[in-house]
Amino acid sequence: MTPHPRQIRLGVSMIGMGYHLAAWRHPEASAGGNMELAHFVRVAQAAERGLFDMAFLADGVGIRFHDEPPGALCRTSKNVQFEPLTLLSALAMVTERVGLVATASTTYNEPYHVARKFASLDHLSGGRAGWNVVTSVTNMEAANFNLDAAPSYASRYERAAEFVEVVRGLWDSWEDDAFIRDKASGINFDQAKLHVLNHKGKHFSVRGPLNVARTPQGAPVIVQAGASDEGRELAAATADVVYAAAQTLEEARAYYASVKGRMARYGREPDALKIMPGIMAIPGATRQVAQDRYDILQELVEPIVGLGALAGSLGDLSGFDLDGPVPPPVSQRMLSRAKIFLGMAERGGLSIRQLYLAIAGGNGHRMVIGTPADIADAMEEWFLGEAADGFNILPPWLPGGLEDVVDQVVPELQRRGLYRTAYAGRTLRDHLGIAPPDNRRAVLATLQAAK
Amino acid sequence: MTPHPRQIRLGVSMIGMGYHLAAWRHPEASAGGNMELAHFVRVAQAAERGLFDMAFLADGVGIRFHDEPPGALCRTSKNVQFEPLTLLSALAMVTERVGLVATASTTYNEPYHVARKFASLDHLSGGRAGWNVVTSVTNMEAANFNLDAAPSYASRYERAAEFVEVVRGLWDSWEDDAFIRDKASGINFDQAKLHVLNHKGKHFSVRGPLNVARTPQGAPVIVQAGASDEGRELAAATADVVYAAAQTLEEARAYYASVKGRMARYGREPDALKIMPGIMAIPGATRQVAQDRYDILQELVEPIVGLGALAGSLGDLSGFDLDGPVPPPVSQRMLSRAKIFLGMAERGGLSIRQLYLAIAGGNGHRMVIGTPADIADAMEEWFLGEAADGFNILPPWLPGGLEDVVDQVVPELQRRGLYRTAYAGRTLRDHLGIAPPDNRRAVLATLQAAK
Repeated sequence: MTPHPRQIRLGVSMIGMGYHLAAWRHPEASAGGNMELAHFVRVAQAAERGLFDMAFLADGVGIRFHDEPPGALCRTSKNVQFEPLTLLSALAMVTERVGLVATASTTYNEPYHVARKFASLDHLSGGRAGWNVVTSVTNMEAANFNLDAAPSYASRYERAAEFVEVVRGLWDSWEDDAFIRDKASGINFDQAKLHVLNHKGKHFSVRGPLNVARTPQGAPVIVQAGASDEGRELAAATADVVYAAAQTLEEARAYYASVKGRMARYGREPDALKIMPGIMAIPGATRQVAQDRYDILQELVEPIVGLGALAGSLGDLSGFDLDGPVPPPVSQRMLSRAKIFLGMAERGGLSIRQLYLAIAGGNGHRMVIGTPADIADAMEEWFLGEAADGFNILPPWLPGGLEDVVDQVVPELQRRGLYRTAYAGRTLRDHLGIAPPDNRRAVLATLQAAK
Repeated sequence: MTPHPRQIRLGVSMIGMGYHLAAWRHPEASAGGNMELAHFVRVAQAAERGLFDMAFLADGVGIRFHDEPPGALCRTSKNVQFEPLTLLSALAMVTERVGLVATASTTYNEPYHVARKFASLDHLSGGRAGWNVVTSVTNMEAANFNLDAAPSYASRYERAAEFVEVVRGLWDSWEDDAFIRDKASGINFDQAKLHVLNHKGKHFSVRGPLNVARTPQGAPVIVQAGASDEGRELAAATADVVYAAAQTLEEARAYYASVKGRMARYGREPDALKIMPGIMAIPGATRQVAQDRYDILQELVEPIVGLGALAGSLGDLSGFDLDGPVPPPVSQRMLSRAKIFLGMAERGGLSIRQLYLAIAGGNGHRMVIGTPADIADAMEEWFLGEAADGFNILPPWLPGGLEDVVDQVVPELQRRGLYRTAYAGRTLRDHLGIAPPDNRRAVLATLQAAK
């Protein structure tokens, strides 16, 4: 079939043993996979076999262990994991094309460190690095960094915006052709092509230059997941990719229009940013086979674990009747995830038990269980309906849940002309169809010289 | 020959294209090797072929570019490099036994981040990670982290000591057998084997636990290079390996006795810490061949580059007669490297030119140019003379300078029964003969339970 002029982009979230709460208990899962390199090698190689744009690692800088009912924590596998930058650097050696995106928080980090690490990964991987920019919201993480509580939302976002600006500035420290390395003359680099950042802002004073050469992609890809107003604005200003969470086409379309609509004020074309909502896709030869595959996991969700999964957003609900209604939130400032959960409960008239079972798989993301054609239909509807440029696949368990998508859904998308049949380029920007950024300092230097 | 009861340990500093100022201009060097993965793969694999205990990456969090005469910086290759943790994670995938040691500064970092990254590398590499603990002394680095000048020496060391304590505490968050991962019961880990650090100190409040399991080595190896009194004390208290810089046997013996002598007050046996002075070893079939190999590089040292290399320690001397005496230092607080340089100048009656040529190779470390037997003699003298437990090889250029040592010096050491003929173990601690540390929190919990 003739390829569609637009092509679906695919990423995969390779968190632990999978996205489903009970993933680690899946009969075919390696129960200790979250600390097994071989597990992640298999996942990343499956993503590459599926010609995915990228494999993505979520991250937190701490383990959550309050707000949850006692006894919940030790029944989940969300406890230990590899540090993302080190793991992705290792995976760069056993893959050749798939993009490698790591989460790094702007809240307890320094832009110089973050700029270096992602630049280094971009070099190591031949231009496949991406940075998922987040802020750290939990008090459990704050307590690992000299604070009793996380900074306010406004402060976190203000810092995040300046942080990204500094990192991008540091990535422009060297022009692409700064390094001459002429053994005969002894000139290693052209001093005129080294740019000192000299950033002085509210949160950061960073002189630069970065001690890493400009990267194969010009700059690593910037990913965000901004759901709030500030988050959408930051994404419109700076992101190359946005991970979104939406349950319905209407929500997804509204989000898509909102973020793309903000880009013009930053002088950006809408297509320079790819919006990729999360989707838990569970394919099977028949709908019943798919449903059975999902039910294997659902049957493993104990109430205490389900309540634990709600606790981070809605507080400890273990004192309420599990088969009664979901009580209103206790916190004044509601997290975006809490809003999604409450919306799901309201739309479906769900009890507490029904709600935790509904989010046990996709954690509030869209879920499609069915034949490969069903899943391709669901993707196509959003893709052609201006609700998505691609999708971030959230496999219920790994690697099997991803391999199912690669083996069943990818061929169906290819038949429809909506998905690549081979990688055309080498870098993550190539896959996404997003040009390397100009070196802004080089442009500035040229303008000044022309005066 | 019967193996000697003590065995020499070897590491290699794989900085850029080599330790010599002109390494990148060596006819056989890849001039852009500092940003080429293939270059470092070759270096790490050469170290492993030589059965080295470890390969070591120095690091700084910035590029130095003042104090040096104008025009010096662009004539050196000490400008860009891979970030160490990302590079070593990649190298873990193409090596199987050699230890992987990265420098990370305690001055502008957070212990939680550092604990995670090295724990992650230890898991990825199957127990081969080491952390070289340093403080960041230069103002150029401070300016990348919101400061005009580096913190005082006392403040840096106080912070470093607490930093190491926190990191070690975080590494003990989980007992070795904390993870049950029983799919049938749904119990992922034993809550009693998770320990919350709750550190509250002068510089850090860190709650923990770490979100990485206890590592294959129990804890990554801790390396230090403390030359000052505080540095020696910190090493005696916490280090598994010390890199030292000494020119003479007397200096090295005094340093060795000083550091080992401090260990008893921390309840440590002298053999629990390995002292490995740096040595630039340049072997050749004859002494003349070796000298010729060195002279290739010495002839490439231009005065401005030599002055640049002195500038960091002694200031910009370009206003002085190059063939006149080395002037006294301008700074009141002398760096340890400045003391070494001035000692060399005094002992040898060196002019400025002679001094920069003398340090162009080893930067103040011991240098031995000669036959493999000459170099083995030099090592053996220090090793048997209680001046060294092993050596950190500083190849003048990479990978050739390392390959020369592997191919010529290693067999000579093996013939003398002073060096392994095969790796006996899998982990860096195995190679070094240093036992994994007890989990101090597990010990504490046991003691409390026994009360």
